[in-house]
Amino acid sequence: MKKNDAISLINDTVRALKAYHLEPETVSVKLNQNENPFDWPLQIKEQIAAFCIERPWNRYPPFIPEKLKRLLADYVGVSSDSIIVGNGSNEMLLVLMLSLVKRSSKAIVCQPTFTVYRLLLEGMGSEALAVNLDSNLNFDIDTIIETSQNNSGSVLILCSPNNPTGTSMGESELRRVLDRHTGFCILDQAYVEFGGFNAIPLLKEYPNLIITRTFSKAFAGAGLRLGYMIGSPEIISEINKIKLPYNINFFSDHVASVLLQNREMLQDSLRCILSERDSLFSFLQKMPFDTVYPSSANFFLVRTEKKQAYFEYLKSQDVLVRDVSNYPMLQNCLRISVGTIEENALLKEATSRFFGV
Amino acid sequence: MKKNDAISLINDTVRALKAYHLEPETVSVKLNQNENPFDWPLQIKEQIAAFCIERPWNRYPPFIPEKLKRLLADYVGVSSDSIIVGNGSNEMLLVLMLSLVKRSSKAIVCQPTFTVYRLLLEGMGSEALAVNLDSNLNFDIDTIIETSQNNSGSVLILCSPNNPTGTSMGESELRRVLDRHTGFCILDQAYVEFGGFNAIPLLKEYPNLIITRTFSKAFAGAGLRLGYMIGSPEIISEINKIKLPYNINFFSDHVASVLLQNREMLQDSLRCILSERDSLFSFLQKMPFDTVYPSSANFFLVRTEKKQAYFEYLKSQDVLVRDVSNYPMLQNCLRISVGTIEENALLKEATSRFFGV
Repeated sequence: MKKNDAISLINDTVRALKAYHLEPETVSVKLNQNENPFDWPLQIKEQIAAFCIERPWNRYPPFIPEKLKRLLADYVGVSSDSIIVGNGSNEMLLVLMLSLVKRSSKAIVCQPTFTVYRLLLEGMGSEALAVNLDSNLNFDIDTIIETSQNNSGSVLILCSPNNPTGTSMGESELRRVLDRHTGFCILDQAYVEFGGFNAIPLLKEYPNLIITRTFSKAFAGAGLRLGYMIGSPEIISEINKIKLPYNINFFSDHVASVLLQNREMLQDSLRCILSERDSLFSFLQKMPFDTVYPSSANFFLVRTEKKQAYFEYLKSQDVLVRDVSNYPMLQNCLRISVGTIEENALLKEATSRFFGV
Repeated sequence: MKKNDAISLINDTVRALKAYHLEPETVSVKLNQNENPFDWPLQIKEQIAAFCIERPWNRYPPFIPEKLKRLLADYVGVSSDSIIVGNGSNEMLLVLMLSLVKRSSKAIVCQPTFTVYRLLLEGMGSEALAVNLDSNLNFDIDTIIETSQNNSGSVLILCSPNNPTGTSMGESELRRVLDRHTGFCILDQAYVEFGGFNAIPLLKEYPNLIITRTFSKAFAGAGLRLGYMIGSPEIISEINKIKLPYNINFFSDHVASVLLQNREMLQDSLRCILSERDSLFSFLQKMPFDTVYPSSANFFLVRTEKKQAYFEYLKSQDVLVRDVSNYPMLQNCLRISVGTIEENALLKEATSRFFGV
């Protein structure tokens, strides 16, 4: 077989995808990935390292990470059989799409939002039906409901607080949508520890609601690649059938369990991020941006016609933010993560210098 | 929405899957998962633990694990752009099926074999077209070719050495198949470090061949959940589009890199497993089994009408093996992993006692 003949055998839906790539960047102030800027306490890391030395690496993890699931269940306030854990929310989203989205069908996705939803839907041959956010980048509830009703039974994917806008959906808004939506609703709450409405109490009322969460953001575990989904036990038990066996490694399993048992250690960093978010917002509003969007998450979206020059200037000052100007509706926009006090100070200084104010 | 209405919205192909479950077992001699019985040297584990303490956990892994891919490329003798890494071969198989198997189409799978192929195919709505092994549980090359020719362009999934039979396909047999097969061939070589033909040199000739490998077996890293696939760079670059970003965590990435740089440390354990395999085979052949199948892997398949009693007796002696009697063609069969010298001695003693010989 010739190479081109082999290439032509690859699924068209995958070939049609654009390759997603992020250039590696080495900067002092990394405000481009919405990470928690604070690492875990040394003492906890040492304790986990000691466990790693003890634990035989040649042995499979447990078939079901019972302890981690129990701790997560306690944390979010559901039963342990309401939870599946995986390698980041990403794996959970893939499993959800395999389980819930019919091939060649449509799924409703608000935009602009996290790009992985569309990547997965399109790669798997489903169509992403886009509902634009409104002109303030808030959720357009009426249009979401209208689109849902015109596409009965379709899967609705929501991200709240939404990446990369920071905007979120309130309880009454979500209820309005769920009261009318006739398919599954996948609600990505990766940033919910920073703000916005926690939808977990709604799970009991809406069995078609499934929530994904992550350790990558507030839990300061982006390096671990650990996420989870929460839904009604009966739904979770069906979805669990297509999840890959032994999906998470012993390290993630153990680390997440230790973290959940010591989660008071995160309180200080979380408080600091939230207070820095307020201070950063006040500052950014005083700068001559076209718009600074209010955020329920640990990042801000800013719009300026000087986007490219501002981005480059920050980089020259060793500060990296994310250019999201190629997202729908986000022309001239940058996304800036909230860093440590020192990092934010460097960002503020560089921004003042750039705008000359 | 009522719970039952929500359940009915889940994809039929997922609902139709049987839930796969493995009861947790605590035994002294664990010969049920084809693990390498030897843990990594303490010194290497300590070195890696020190790295973990240094490395910030709040930061994402690199977008592409360049170093690991380069080391893997050196190890298997291909270029770095021929490789994708993931959470076990399992994730690689899922990505391959998303990329290569058309929805509602058929894929050819020899049976009995590793159950995950069928789980994924059926869960994703494709049909697994089974080709039985021959009566000695060897690959039935003529029937594979015939089935391939009757299903032009379909994906062929092979596992060699095959789990749970231990049988493998030779170079000339694989060439006979590949010379005639007009679709992709996914060749799972999870056990190839223990024996059988290493198919990597064939990649240059057959762009429709893709090989999966793992750290779980010979590399003694079942706890890490790390696997990889190898194919032509042009094919790999297309498949890579549907792989989830940031799929492996920093721990797996680092550990695997360290292992590949110190792989001489595995030579002793590998030599020991191979010599124990020979000794175990001689022993098992002397016992009154109906059949003991020769193996190119680190396990043996045995058949005995006393399967259930033998299994239970071993368990009562704190030795756990795998009951595979529910696989097609494997009535009365058990699969026994090769353990340490001491573990194999316990297995042998218990087996002698059970059969009274």
